[in-house]
Amino acid sequence: MKVVALSGGVGGAKFVHGLSQILSSDELTTIVNVGDDFSFLGLTICPDLDTVCYTLAGLANSGTGWGRKDETWNALETISGLGGPAWFHLGDKDIGWHLLRTRMLQDGMTLSEVTSYFCKHHNIPYQVYPVTNDPVPTLVKTNDDKVLNFQDYFVRLGCRPAVAGFDFHNIEKSQPVPGVLDAIHDADIVVIGPSNPWVSIQPILNVPGIRKAIREKITIVISPVKGDKAFRGPAAKMYLEMGINPSAAAVAYHYKHIATGIVIDKEDCDQMAAIEGWGIMVVSTDITMRDEKDRARLASEVIKFYKQIEQEKFNDPLGNNSSKTT
Amino acid sequence: MKVVALSGGVGGAKFVHGLSQILSSDELTTIVNVGDDFSFLGLTICPDLDTVCYTLAGLANSGTGWGRKDETWNALETISGLGGPAWFHLGDKDIGWHLLRTRMLQDGMTLSEVTSYFCKHHNIPYQVYPVTNDPVPTLVKTNDDKVLNFQDYFVRLGCRPAVAGFDFHNIEKSQPVPGVLDAIHDADIVVIGPSNPWVSIQPILNVPGIRKAIREKITIVISPVKGDKAFRGPAAKMYLEMGINPSAAAVAYHYKHIATGIVIDKEDCDQMAAIEGWGIMVVSTDITMRDEKDRARLASEVIKFYKQIEQEKFNDPLGNNSSKTT
Repeated sequence: MKVVALSGGVGGAKFVHGLSQILSSDELTTIVNVGDDFSFLGLTICPDLDTVCYTLAGLANSGTGWGRKDETWNALETISGLGGPAWFHLGDKDIGWHLLRTRMLQDGMTLSEVTSYFCKHHNIPYQVYPVTNDPVPTLVKTNDDKVLNFQDYFVRLGCRPAVAGFDFHNIEKSQPVPGVLDAIHDADIVVIGPSNPWVSIQPILNVPGIRKAIREKITIVISPVKGDKAFRGPAAKMYLEMGINPSAAAVAYHYKHIATGIVIDKEDCDQMAAIEGWGIMVVSTDITMRDEKDRARLASEVIKFYKQIEQEKFNDPLGNNSSKTT
Repeated sequence: MKVVALSGGVGGAKFVHGLSQILSSDELTTIVNVGDDFSFLGLTICPDLDTVCYTLAGLANSGTGWGRKDETWNALETISGLGGPAWFHLGDKDIGWHLLRTRMLQDGMTLSEVTSYFCKHHNIPYQVYPVTNDPVPTLVKTNDDKVLNFQDYFVRLGCRPAVAGFDFHNIEKSQPVPGVLDAIHDADIVVIGPSNPWVSIQPILNVPGIRKAIREKITIVISPVKGDKAFRGPAAKMYLEMGINPSAAAVAYHYKHIATGIVIDKEDCDQMAAIEGWGIMVVSTDITMRDEKDRARLASEVIKFYKQIEQEKFNDPLGNNSSKTT
């Protein structure tokens, strides 16, 4: 089978790693958000791509979820000691890769070529694509009418400003990386990882052609929300600030034009009826990924869910949805 | 008294550190070669400036003479592991400073401003100037008619090619850093540190106005050669390749239009008569700098030599030279 996964950073990367444990190299393609990408100290930084690639390469820091394991911090401490900008946390190994990538991009390689280069060197057999090679920086509009660069909002200001909306700059002019639309077209299933719907998945879907291609597919969402909390990051806070109570149901509603099904936590199974009412199939299970086994188990549940959906389609070709719990 | 020291990298930096141990902050100004400066991985690297500044800041690696003490190498090892260029040895702390400097230069600061910034942050009370803020990259002409960038010759190729000459690109159009000519003008003595005459001192002297300003001054050279060997680097090899037997006398002859005196090793005292014959005063002493005490002792000997020269001038105002040994 062919699976396309959409991913932001930590949560998405963990889930993709789960898929990689149960799928062969030609069965998994990952499409990664680049709206978070930015320039810091002259380095081109791609936080989500790096988190996915480091995770698949076995290089990720399992404690933080981002950055490299066995990392040192001497370059950044030197910069900080000299009064330079050090608010974005870059370890020395991480900086090594940023230096090389920045050089390669300046030498004319595309971001997708550079990403493939990294994967090849680290024996990652799965295709990992940035959704686009064009810069589409996420801008965060705040409720006091400011516009912040994403990493200013996310890291420097610790997500403290209240958001009023998002702009993915120039995304309407961007193009999907060659191969991305074909991968979606060829996929049996598209899985939207447990990433932030507003600032990780939306800037993937908004790249011209992506949303339309995914609508043709069986698409399963993994909820990044359990109860009224996101597993990490500001997703729940963003829902509140946008006037929506954060919940698995809110996530499902968010994706109602695109989701065939959603995987929610078993603690949220009281929301299943509402979600089904919007024509979205639901599986409830333990969606917390504490360790690598959890990742693989959740990935397996998604594949099982896909097979149930396929069976439902076979049994009910007119597409009247039903749902299952595990 | 006012001392201006000209310096390349390791040897010059050690001697400047010696001077700093015996002179107050307003007595010592160092003018540093920038012909070695180059761009690597998008970073602006200034090896001689950094060696001088790290040494004065107490941050230098005393084992290598260049780079930082207590250094790690994770960024470069990452780059190397990914097949990137890693032939120039940059530690993580070193990279931190290069990242910040490159950023500051791109933001419009001059190299001299950036150097002052570093010195101020590290409580270096002595003025350290790059000789010029203009790029004057040293090009090495080889005996097989190739032209190599200096660091390609020096580090990547380990000084193996035989040299036929040097070009300090665009140096005729360069300008001394503001303050440099005034410092020379105000100096009681100019000291040319034990640096490579060809590729460390010549690109200082060739900046328009510098040589002329120094000719007005009492100028003492510290020989970088003992016997037929340079203390480090390719100076002796370069002399041979340029058709000159390397020796303290060869160094003195090299500087005959500029040197008032030269400090040579006591093992080379058989060369004193020849050097004096060219109108250059000589002191012979132990010029090896094994440790910080040696640096201060050698610096003291130079100041003592200067006082002897001053006394000679007083005794012999027509300037018929004589020499002393210690």
